[in-house]
Amino acid sequence: MRRNIVTMPIHKADGGNSISPCQDLLAVEEPLQIRVNGRDLSITMRTPGQDAELAAGFLFTEGILKTRADLMAVDCSENSVALTLADGVDTGTARNFYTTSSCGVCGKASIESLHAIGCAMLPELEIRAEIIHNLPEKLRAAQSAFDRTGGLHAAALFDASGAMEAIREDVGRHNAVDKLIGAAFLESRLPLSHSILMLSGRASFELIQKAVMAGIPVVAAVGAPSSLAVESARRFGMTLLGFVRDERFNIYTGLSRLR
Amino acid sequence: MRRNIVTMPIHKADGGNSISPCQDLLAVEEPLQIRVNGRDLSITMRTPGQDAELAAGFLFTEGILKTRADLMAVDCSENSVALTLADGVDTGTARNFYTTSSCGVCGKASIESLHAIGCAMLPELEIRAEIIHNLPEKLRAAQSAFDRTGGLHAAALFDASGAMEAIREDVGRHNAVDKLIGAAFLESRLPLSHSILMLSGRASFELIQKAVMAGIPVVAAVGAPSSLAVESARRFGMTLLGFVRDERFNIYTGLSRLR
Repeated sequence: MRRNIVTMPIHKADGGNSISPCQDLLAVEEPLQIRVNGRDLSITMRTPGQDAELAAGFLFTEGILKTRADLMAVDCSENSVALTLADGVDTGTARNFYTTSSCGVCGKASIESLHAIGCAMLPELEIRAEIIHNLPEKLRAAQSAFDRTGGLHAAALFDASGAMEAIREDVGRHNAVDKLIGAAFLESRLPLSHSILMLSGRASFELIQKAVMAGIPVVAAVGAPSSLAVESARRFGMTLLGFVRDERFNIYTGLSRLR
Repeated sequence: MRRNIVTMPIHKADGGNSISPCQDLLAVEEPLQIRVNGRDLSITMRTPGQDAELAAGFLFTEGILKTRADLMAVDCSENSVALTLADGVDTGTARNFYTTSSCGVCGKASIESLHAIGCAMLPELEIRAEIIHNLPEKLRAAQSAFDRTGGLHAAALFDASGAMEAIREDVGRHNAVDKLIGAAFLESRLPLSHSILMLSGRASFELIQKAVMAGIPVVAAVGAPSSLAVESARRFGMTLLGFVRDERFNIYTGLSRLR
């Protein structure tokens, strides 16, 4: 059985307002803990498979491993890879790794650990499928005014009637969402219990984490969600929509909010 | 003057083998240092603008800021934002931030610091435009066999004749590149002086960093590069191609390798 793709029951909506159940394939996203000489070095959210390559490539491109002889052994287990370096190889004091939220949360309890930082069940909100069908065009129209480079991710908030409340762009999709939520925070408008978050790209675990923290009950993405995005959305009662384009979308979780 | 978009002189290649100079707009990517109560918390690569929002949103979605009253002051300066929290707000001992390379390298000297980790000037390699035009189709053909989810980024190595050497996929584009380079590392095939790296998405600074570390002289992306990707590619003599699709591509740096 392949671990990098999972089958999940979802619903599909087309332009004609019909919603029907089907099976969908999702890319698996899971945390990988990278340990070096018995010490935790990094946690990254990744698609399982080639974990030894991933860890070796990461340490090489960070300048820790310089030659093949620097790496004595690599041992992979479930979502963990342990590397043993040759004597004298500097394990990273020469350069700091940078802390970021883009890896999501920790280890095996990725979803449950969201409770610890304040994630709670999301509120009710009625939404109509017609509203969703119009979001991509509104996002594109607003984005084209800003993004003339083709290189920026966009995140926007809409109300339940489909009116755009705010939009932010960034080379990093997690930054675009942070800017959107940060603006609401600075204006004391959190939680965003009546908002829909629209994403110009794919939906990863970290983006769902941010939406749950902000109390956003509906997330709609132009691209695909990952397996962990769907699982965490379900855990907190979010409506998660993907492939929102061309008058169609997939409903991964939270069907009950759709009218 | 907008700081989130820059104009840059580039060359454009069309299917008819003609290459002509023009001006292009690029999304700006620069590091932002986030300081909390006088201490460095995080560095993230972002598009300048709304730095206070970005920092506030990041700290809120990480569970450090809980209410508006937790944040006393935000002061922005060039690529740095300093937050002062209210007395008693825990600045993050409750939860670890995860180290990752996905933010690229540090502070103002992002590009120059690549020397410190081992980046060097890239070797010569002759490539023909026809070879480049065919890469997207080859990538898609190989990817469709693996990715049936629409949710995976791909990175592939090709030789100068356009033959695919390896392909890796992941929910994280930096992971796909790490896997590709890690595989070569484990087989003692580095540096990849005769290879072209093809990316299914956009080219950010961190991906250019990884390619330079692996000695890859040519990077071709289906999407757009960021400003910092182009600047770092130029610094190490890389040929960086973007918007490689529909028999066209942009040449951002390293025109001399094209025959």
